[in-house]
Amino acid sequence: MIILGIDPGIAIVGYGVIDSSKGIHTVVDYGVVETPKEEITAVRLAMIADSVRKIIERYEPRDIALEELYFNTNQKTIIRVAEARGVLLLTAIERCGGVYEYTPLQVKQSITGYGRAEKQQVQQMVKTLLKLDKIPKPDDAADALAVALCHAQVAGFNKRIRT
Amino acid sequence: MIILGIDPGIAIVGYGVIDSSKGIHTVVDYGVVETPKEEITAVRLAMIADSVRKIIERYEPRDIALEELYFNTNQKTIIRVAEARGVLLLTAIERCGGVYEYTPLQVKQSITGYGRAEKQQVQQMVKTLLKLDKIPKPDDAADALAVALCHAQVAGFNKRIRT
Repeated sequence: MIILGIDPGIAIVGYGVIDSSKGIHTVVDYGVVETPKEEITAVRLAMIADSVRKIIERYEPRDIALEELYFNTNQKTIIRVAEARGVLLLTAIERCGGVYEYTPLQVKQSITGYGRAEKQQVQQMVKTLLKLDKIPKPDDAADALAVALCHAQVAGFNKRIRT
Repeated sequence: MIILGIDPGIAIVGYGVIDSSKGIHTVVDYGVVETPKEEITAVRLAMIADSVRKIIERYEPRDIALEELYFNTNQKTIIRVAEARGVLLLTAIERCGGVYEYTPLQVKQSITGYGRAEKQQVQQMVKTLLKLDKIPKPDDAADALAVALCHAQVAGFNKRIRT
């Protein structure tokens, strides 16, 4: 199944598309959507929505997974990042039925087995799980792949429990 | 000109539509959009977007004005409210060209002439400026009318400067 992972932001949104089947995860695409800080917020949000709609149309993910905001990250930018996250949640649910949210702790836990893992450890595991030659760049794209992998593992696990 | 004012929220979104011409302001409509707290955030955001799109289609405002979030309001709910606000900004700019943001201080200042006015004073002025029999209820709708009036006054003032 195709999973789109998203790392929310207002200046830069990371995305990662993986194909996940029977515990095998393959990269389909990853990258970032950037918005110019000179633009007003509403225009930047519209740019994000447009770009993410195109990504969804192109890859037709079955599920979309977004990372939740960690409140203490950066109090100055948290409101603008949350506004972008709202736009991403809306775009996701309007174009794709399955929308899932994971906390940073859940992502780290599912990828490395340890909720307080360092960023570098998570990125290393993303590289390993996806059999990549090197860690995906920029960090926002690697984070998006991590949340997609987190969902793949949780969804796979839930499936096994059900059957 | 028709102005739509919006008071952002996730559980309750206030809206107020006024017709403003040559310093005379008339109420067209006001009310609230509510979302059930049992629903997941993405669904609540989609409900907000749907309802506000219908309000925009119905009244075809020339401008839409939104209140900015005051960071210290309620730290527990600020992220969800900001997510809703992002959806409202996106919906506004996708359906109407003119989107404007005002801080609570700007709204109070323009309505009462005093940036630290009490909520009650602002509501009383909304009633007076719109020649209403009583203060509009609920508070969220009155706040939305206040931000619409704020924009009417600022926009009218800018116009006078230009001509």
